[in-house]
Amino acid sequence: MTGGVGFGVFSVGGDAPRVGFRVGNGILDLTTVRLGAVFDAASLNPFLALGRSAWEDTLSRIDQLVTGGAEIIPLEQTVAHLPIEVGDYVDFYSSLEHATNLGRLFRPDVEPLLPNWRYLPVGYHGRSGTVVVSGTPIVRPCGQAKASDEVAPTFGPSRRLDIELELGFVVGVGSSLGAPVPAAVVRDHVFGVVLVNDWSARDIQAWEYQPLGPFLGKSFATSVSAWVTPLALLEDRFVRAPVQDPEPLPYLRVAGEWALDAELEVELSGTVVSRTNASGLYWTMPQQLAHATVNGASIRTGDLFATGTISGSKHGSEGSLIELTSNGVHPIRLGDGSTRTFLEDDDEVVLRGRAGDLELGEVRGTIVPASV
Amino acid sequence: MTGGVGFGVFSVGGDAPRVGFRVGNGILDLTTVRLGAVFDAASLNPFLALGRSAWEDTLSRIDQLVTGGAEIIPLEQTVAHLPIEVGDYVDFYSSLEHATNLGRLFRPDVEPLLPNWRYLPVGYHGRSGTVVVSGTPIVRPCGQAKASDEVAPTFGPSRRLDIELELGFVVGVGSSLGAPVPAAVVRDHVFGVVLVNDWSARDIQAWEYQPLGPFLGKSFATSVSAWVTPLALLEDRFVRAPVQDPEPLPYLRVAGEWALDAELEVELSGTVVSRTNASGLYWTMPQQLAHATVNGASIRTGDLFATGTISGSKHGSEGSLIELTSNGVHPIRLGDGSTRTFLEDDDEVVLRGRAGDLELGEVRGTIVPASV
Repeated sequence: MTGGVGFGVFSVGGDAPRVGFRVGNGILDLTTVRLGAVFDAASLNPFLALGRSAWEDTLSRIDQLVTGGAEIIPLEQTVAHLPIEVGDYVDFYSSLEHATNLGRLFRPDVEPLLPNWRYLPVGYHGRSGTVVVSGTPIVRPCGQAKASDEVAPTFGPSRRLDIELELGFVVGVGSSLGAPVPAAVVRDHVFGVVLVNDWSARDIQAWEYQPLGPFLGKSFATSVSAWVTPLALLEDRFVRAPVQDPEPLPYLRVAGEWALDAELEVELSGTVVSRTNASGLYWTMPQQLAHATVNGASIRTGDLFATGTISGSKHGSEGSLIELTSNGVHPIRLGDGSTRTFLEDDDEVVLRGRAGDLELGEVRGTIVPASV
Repeated sequence: MTGGVGFGVFSVGGDAPRVGFRVGNGILDLTTVRLGAVFDAASLNPFLALGRSAWEDTLSRIDQLVTGGAEIIPLEQTVAHLPIEVGDYVDFYSSLEHATNLGRLFRPDVEPLLPNWRYLPVGYHGRSGTVVVSGTPIVRPCGQAKASDEVAPTFGPSRRLDIELELGFVVGVGSSLGAPVPAAVVRDHVFGVVLVNDWSARDIQAWEYQPLGPFLGKSFATSVSAWVTPLALLEDRFVRAPVQDPEPLPYLRVAGEWALDAELEVELSGTVVSRTNASGLYWTMPQQLAHATVNGASIRTGDLFATGTISGSKHGSEGSLIELTSNGVHPIRLGDGSTRTFLEDDDEVVLRGRAGDLELGEVRGTIVPASV
């Protein structure tokens, strides 16, 4: 299948949201083609819970229908909804380049990459209740921040609002408490991928994050694609991941090629400001899933795991503004001649991704002024 | 009402789980007294979403029924289930004594209390999918750990498995994205409280937690009471919280008395090893709710916010073994003559709480050997 994007939830007019499959600029309504009651739902979760053979059968059926000329609803007649009911949301920190860049900015006095980074995929839990679908306006968050030359924090709208370009994977089939999910069985559990913009207020984050990690600097919103692209459609697009040194512990070893060769770009108010590729990520999806469950933690249908910011090694391939502008020191210039360090009100950010001839669902968001 | 404990979900024999109110050693089945269809559910969430006046009406009706001699099902004939479908789970770090003790142990070379601690209630997101009801066995987690004298981490069952004695509050009525919840309206949103045991694998946590916070050291299980005690039953039990210095920023100021005067204890395999009181916590529930939403993050019915470990200033009032044993250096002695640094397999932990003559739902858990 080419041009296909993935599964999502949509509505037309005031109709109830339902499941569809996006093909190019249109949507195949899966309720009218009677593939089962799971599609008459406001999220993909009932379908995702059915498991891998149902996913594959459905894709075959969709392929037949599209080839056979089934009705496709033009995208512009539809409204897209959040495709999944998110269980837990975990965000990793899988890019060596991003972790090094951020370490240098947040902890200038020590080695940027902390000792644990090459031994385990560092990650943390984000707020699942504020995961929103592409297109949702992003209200500039307020919070506490303290500059290094101030004696006490002040409260106000974030002045260092940033993006994070990420990929996410969505869990279809869950697991039981106490039973780790080995890296080798990832395809039995993970349904597909989305693009993710993990909006970040760097000033709030810098003041709050020690010792328990990011909280309000991230929890105000996380945007995801309206369309989840099944792994099954991406099989040919995985390539060999970077060599890991030291060799990971046995539970993190996995056979096969697990780096997704997906070209990604960040557009900021009309200008593409970053281009990179997800294949450079150090830690891979099966490793992340194995790590997140090795302590016996269970996973659920709808759980979202994101890669963390995807940054390349060259200038112009960083997945966040804090990196692209060297912490605001070197502004970037947009096509209209204006410059940016961090996001300004009314800025629109679009994340796009493509794996071969398959387009991933874009992630779009516009900054709305703070509500104070 | 005295002796009452709160609302929960129970079943008898193989019946479907439903909502009940625990009074002493029995349960009032709320489906048979026909207070509404919301009680014919496997979680409290539909009832919690109704809001404050419905909660108060229900409590009045329960009071009448209990006084009027309605049938009470003996507790031993019932099975308790997880009372809420947890949305997001946030854990704070509200005890000055605990934060100081842990800082000293985890970061011996710097000031134990970090600069942000007195300005904001430090918190992070935990894993909501692994919140379990009291009585659920706790499988000893495996993971990576690295002693300071080792050059690389090793993998295996945690050797420093610990407890954290906490209180949690449960959100009834949610809020909208972008709209902070002021501290003053906490009673319109928060339904009630539970006891929480935030099980912690200290060796896994120490190796993984920088820079993004605790992850696998906590995510394997968090146990909560089977019974949620409504705030409305605790009104007389709030006392003045410790004076805060410096004075908090305006969004964190709140009128009234917000420290819950609840006596708490930790029993370890038959011996009470800690006694403390929740009224000594530095940060209060309305402050935590205001802080968690000041960036515009929304809350949902079923969200769980926990205080973080409750430790007093005297020896024997610490809410974790790492504190009670000075990081395993000074073992504690149990009634049977045995000693403990951290939890051993087959140990049973019971957290109990009492606010005046009102008993909070206990939290019980037994350690099961690691499954490797």
